[in-house]
Amino acid sequence: MYQLHIANKNYSSWSLRPWLLMRELGIDVEEQLTPFDTGSSWATFRAFSPSGRVPCLIDGGLAVWDSLAIVEYLAERHPGVWPASANARAWARSACAEMHSGFNALRSECPMNCGLRVRVTSPSTPLQHDLARLEELWQQGLETFGGAFLAGDAFTAVDAFFAPVAFRVQGFDLPLGATTGAYVKRLLALPGMQDWYRAALAEPWRDEPHERETLAAGERLADHRHAATP
Amino acid sequence: MYQLHIANKNYSSWSLRPWLLMRELGIDVEEQLTPFDTGSSWATFRAFSPSGRVPCLIDGGLAVWDSLAIVEYLAERHPGVWPASANARAWARSACAEMHSGFNALRSECPMNCGLRVRVTSPSTPLQHDLARLEELWQQGLETFGGAFLAGDAFTAVDAFFAPVAFRVQGFDLPLGATTGAYVKRLLALPGMQDWYRAALAEPWRDEPHERETLAAGERLADHRHAATP
Repeated sequence: MYQLHIANKNYSSWSLRPWLLMRELGIDVEEQLTPFDTGSSWATFRAFSPSGRVPCLIDGGLAVWDSLAIVEYLAERHPGVWPASANARAWARSACAEMHSGFNALRSECPMNCGLRVRVTSPSTPLQHDLARLEELWQQGLETFGGAFLAGDAFTAVDAFFAPVAFRVQGFDLPLGATTGAYVKRLLALPGMQDWYRAALAEPWRDEPHERETLAAGERLADHRHAATP
Repeated sequence: MYQLHIANKNYSSWSLRPWLLMRELGIDVEEQLTPFDTGSSWATFRAFSPSGRVPCLIDGGLAVWDSLAIVEYLAERHPGVWPASANARAWARSACAEMHSGFNALRSECPMNCGLRVRVTSPSTPLQHDLARLEELWQQGLETFGGAFLAGDAFTAVDAFFAPVAFRVQGFDLPLGATTGAYVKRLLALPGMQDWYRAALAEPWRDEPHERETLAAGERLADHRHAATP
């Protein structure tokens, strides 16, 4: 059976992507969670991941590190990872790659922190730019392929890649249009997303850098984690 | 025929990746070069690329943006993009994805600027970390798959993904071991790399932000471009 190394469910947006994909596609996997260290987690994560980062998939003796490489590895072995149509697949891969190396303002100014609710007091110009591009990209996928998910009727890797954004929209109350807002609701309602969210709220760990980054976005409204931070 | 939108050959490391891959694999393509604008190139590049970034591949009416998505698009249509062995392919994809979202210090402190020669005066700790990881990763590929290239005997997408690093090693005289140093020499000797380099040196454009970033690394030693900057 596969093993998937991940970090804290409350914070680790990269971990969520392959985890959710495998969960929604029914791919058997044993989860191995290692919480972030205070400071650098590199030395800790190097015990199982060549890059010192999560996620990392282990298949027998083989390590596949980085979320995108894991997705392509799974796509060679399981149906449904990418959309069946070649055009939808090209679009989905482009959108995933754009998220993988872009949306930097969204990722740094609105980090995934499942349990917290924060009001963004003054969104930066780069963040506004990222949100406009996100709206455009999602709208394009939902309209072009005409399904409930970004590249058609089925949940595929491109939805997994944008799933952390759904938690960000919820946590920071980010503005979206009607169509894209409804899509976020569908993502949040997925059984895998609900399980991940419940587990995130129950985690006892607090990582100071992640907490600080989240609160830098604006005004703290609520903390839904069970052992709420003071 | 495909069209590949790229930016300045002297600076655009992301453009080089799919350009070199297509060139080395003999995939017919029409190059469309649009130089960087001073300031933001987003509005200019949006004319052909949905993300406002290069590279972007056009196939008929379809746009495939981002270097990794282009590579996977080509891999579905042409042999030789990825190594034939499943294990080598998983390794190559992991290494590409790590470069796609990582090696930030190497990318920002030693930007690709083909014509310039700069002595790095005081490499930062993150840069030293990136160089150590690069050495380890390349060594692993060259040893494990035992070929002239990173994932075996043939040049594949993972070599294309690290090709800009070869220009960085040359430009900043970055330290490497004997095995990995020889690999860089093989990359620089590829016909596609030599053509790209010659074209980069002949370009008349200078982009101030790219020039500034390059010179921030240390002491300027030489400029091999034809119309040398003062």
